[in-house]
This record gives sequence, structure tokens and C-alpha cells, in this order.
Amino acid sequence: MGAARRSTIESLSNPLIKRMRLLREKRHRRAEGMFLAEGLRIATEAREAGILPLWLFLGVEGAAHPLAQALIDATLASGGEVIDTTPAVLSKLSGKDNPQAIVAIYAEPKTALADIDRSGAPIWLVAERMRDPGNLGTMLRTGDAVGAGGLILLDESTDPYAVEAVRASMGAIFTQKLVQARWEEFRPWLRGGPGQLVATWLGDDTQDYQAVRYAAPTFILVGNESQGMPTDYAAAADVRVKMPMMGKADSLNAAVAAAVMAYEVLNQRRNG
Amino acid sequence: MGAARRSTIESLSNPLIKRMRLLREKRHRRAEGMFLAEGLRIATEAREAGILPLWLFLGVEGAAHPLAQALIDATLASGGEVIDTTPAVLSKLSGKDNPQAIVAIYAEPKTALADIDRSGAPIWLVAERMRDPGNLGTMLRTGDAVGAGGLILLDESTDPYAVEAVRASMGAIFTQKLVQARWEEFRPWLRGGPGQLVATWLGDDTQDYQAVRYAAPTFILVGNESQGMPTDYAAAADVRVKMPMMGKADSLNAAVAAAVMAYEVLNQRRNG
Repeated sequence: MGAARRSTIESLSNPLIKRMRLLREKRHRRAEGMFLAEGLRIATEAREAGILPLWLFLGVEGAAHPLAQALIDATLASGGEVIDTTPAVLSKLSGKDNPQAIVAIYAEPKTALADIDRSGAPIWLVAERMRDPGNLGTMLRTGDAVGAGGLILLDESTDPYAVEAVRASMGAIFTQKLVQARWEEFRPWLRGGPGQLVATWLGDDTQDYQAVRYAAPTFILVGNESQGMPTDYAAAADVRVKMPMMGKADSLNAAVAAAVMAYEVLNQRRNG
Repeated sequence: MGAARRSTIESLSNPLIKRMRLLREKRHRRAEGMFLAEGLRIATEAREAGILPLWLFLGVEGAAHPLAQALIDATLASGGEVIDTTPAVLSKLSGKDNPQAIVAIYAEPKTALADIDRSGAPIWLVAERMRDPGNLGTMLRTGDAVGAGGLILLDESTDPYAVEAVRASMGAIFTQKLVQARWEEFRPWLRGGPGQLVATWLGDDTQDYQAVRYAAPTFILVGNESQGMPTDYAAAADVRVKMPMMGKADSLNAAVAAAVMAYEVLNQRRNG
């Protein structure tokens, strides 16, 4: 905190730039407890959710945008640093030839299962060993759309704070709760309170996903993209459901399956 | 056609290998009229759909797999070449450190709007200026799942034969019709026969997507990932629909929106 801090960095070899660009790598994100988001739109979504960057890097174009001033003011007011910089530096930070006009660095929130108010939302998405950061970000975005409380990542998942996941979330990384837990923690936590666990399951003993009446809070569980979920996870669910598959394939993309399920749950609620 | 041809290539500098690896680039796919697919699973889906590769590259592991023999036999019977090769060559072809055990090269089908039997399927997906190959492949996969006839790509789209799109389609690239057309061609073709054009639209003048009774064949139109579709495309649709959005975001991922819509259409039909 302290005095408002705004400065200019133009050198590609500036130590802060060198340090921040490493946030594109998972191990550096873990070590720093920070992640990187690109674009005024996502940073504005974050601001509206009350989340401000530790560092805000702006090109001339970014600084001139009508939405930028509110972001600059709020960043400074919260004790963050605002750094005016060049397209070359933004390119180095983002790793892209045509970088967005702003790059913002945020602290990674640490949310545990115990921090979740499960009854505060009618839907929670749960993904097991999610591999693809685009799928992960898309699930966050879908969660926001259906009024879910957040996404619970079970076991070894791809990093939700990877640039691709943050981008695909379209800002939902800031509005959805994000918890990483092992199945051995999740299961007793789930059974320690209200909640229906619904597994999208490709095996036997399933019901059509529209034949089930869902109870809130509904926890929608989708399995790993290529292997699905372990049998005992599905067996531990309150209900196993399947979407109709009319063609040759036996499964949907994981983010698509989560979305089709989540809209069914939402539709049942809004249709009475 | 002609005599069965099976040979071995172990050299990374073999001219055929050099030529085939260029198929990872769009301009070479266009010039050759061919594309590359990885993995026994996708190649087997293709075979079951009656589509066989021009060249089939197999590592020792690939050749030994129980499903490989049928693929080898069918490839040779159809006049294709089967080439036993090394992991290093497969890696060079696929551009991946851990390549799949087979890489197959297919002729790009050329399907025009005039080739489509629109009444042969109850649903057709239509995407306008799709940018992301993963989204495109996911839409093909969803199309297969809902019993759609295929995917119509309007205007300038990402290449559906890119490796990422083929991979995300999980084989549906071989079972769904794929047409590329301009809006100026699509619109008169559409109106030259039966078909309801449904636009997923973020603007005004929309209905809730569950409030509409869909007529077959239903053409589900989704717009560009970041800009949505042009106003006049939406205006030309028979109906403009919106999914409920309960959170901060105003839109869904394009492939997710297509899937949620397509399952609604399918559900209306199967529920009578």
C-alpha cells in the first residue's frame, strides 16, 4: 500500500519485466502466487468483481481507452503499480506478436473446499483431471452463465491460471470460485452437507439426463477428456446420467458435456 | 490403385516424409488437397465411415495394435500406401514429441451446398467466421452426437482440416458433411428449400431458446467468437434466440452455444 505509484518501463531487460514474463510458466506462477491476464475487457470484469491487479502494464493505446482510467485509478487506490510501457514489452510479457493493449498481474486466490458456501449457488461444476486449459476456462465461463458458484478441480488438473485458461474463461476466473482438491477430500466434504452429485457417465447404469429431477445444490461431475472418470467416482455419485448420442461418437467434449448438463439443471429450475 | 503397396521408411529426410509434414500448414493442405490425422482411433472411425487414407504411417506399436490390421488391409485394398516407420518419423510428421502410433493422410473432400441433402438430417450447424480450430472440431463432434448432418462454415473460417480441428472432432470430420460457403451463396441456397434458420443472437429482438418450437431441418447459426455475427445475418434468420445468462458474462463459448442449442432442438424432437 502507500503512495500511488505510476512509472514507465521501456527496457525489455528490466528485471520486473523479466520476472513477470516467467508467469507464463506454471512453476513460476506457483512460486510467485501470481498469474497474468491480458486485455482490458478481462481486467475490467475483474475490477467490477472487486479484484485489482498487483501490476498493471499499459501500452499507449491501452492507457487511452475510455475504460482504462477507472482501472488505473482503482489499481493505484488498492496499492497496485501502474506501468506505462511499449508494445515490445507487452509482447514480451504476453508472448504474442500482437499483444493486447494491457497485461495485468493478479494474486492467485487460494480457495479451499471449507471456504465454499455450497448453498450460495444452485450449481457447482466439478471436473476430474481436466487436461485442456481451453476446456477449463470454457467451463468457468459456462459456470458464470448458468449461475454456478464455481468450479472444483479434482486430482491432477491442468493449471487453471495458465494464460489459455484465463483467456478462455473470459473473466469468469474472477467471478467463479475455483477450488483444487483431491477426491479423498472432496467426497467427505460433499457428504458433510447438502448436495446432489451427478456424474456424466459413459458406462452402464445411467439415466437419461432429462429423466432426472435435480436437487440444489447440484454438483455436476465430468471426467478426464480421454479416459472419463474412475468407476468408483461414478459409483459414489447420487446419479449417473448420459446425454443422448445419436451418431458414431460415444462422448462429448468435456466442456460441452458440462454445459449441456448445466443448462438442463438451470432449465428445470426456471421452468418450475 | 493397382498392386498392394507396403514399404518401410526410416529416414527423416525421405522426400515423402518431407512433403507430408508440410500438411501441418494450411497452404500446403490447399495445394495438395490433403490433410493429416493422428491416431488409430480416428483412423478407425474414418474406416468405419468408408474413408481410407492415401498414406498410412505406422510405428511398430501402431502396426501391432489389434485394430491396425483391418486398417492396413482396407488401406491397401483401396489403393493406398502403408508405410512402416519409426517414432522419430511419426514425430516429424505430427510435430509432437510423443506422437500417436499412426499418422494417416486423407484426401480433403470437397462438398458444396448443392451436394447436401438437407432433409436427410434434422439439424445442421452453421458457423460464421469461426476462428478457433478447437471450437470448430468440437462443433463437428457435437454435430455427430446430436444427429446433425454437418457443419456449414460461412465466410472466412479457420481451416477445418488443421490438425487441431481434426483432433478435436474426434473422428466427426469423417462423418459430418463439411461445407465452406459465403453468406451470399448460403442465403439463397437456404431459401431454395425447407429449413428454419435459427440465430443465436446477443442483440435485441430475441426469444428465449426454449420458447421456440423448432422445425426440421433446423439450421443453427452461431457467430464469430469475439464479434458475434453481422446484424443482417441475424435479421435474415427466421428466429433469433438467446440462452439465459445468469452471471456477468454476456455470451457463451461458440461451440458451447451451438451444443446447448442443438440439444434443445434434439430434446424437443425426442420428447415429442
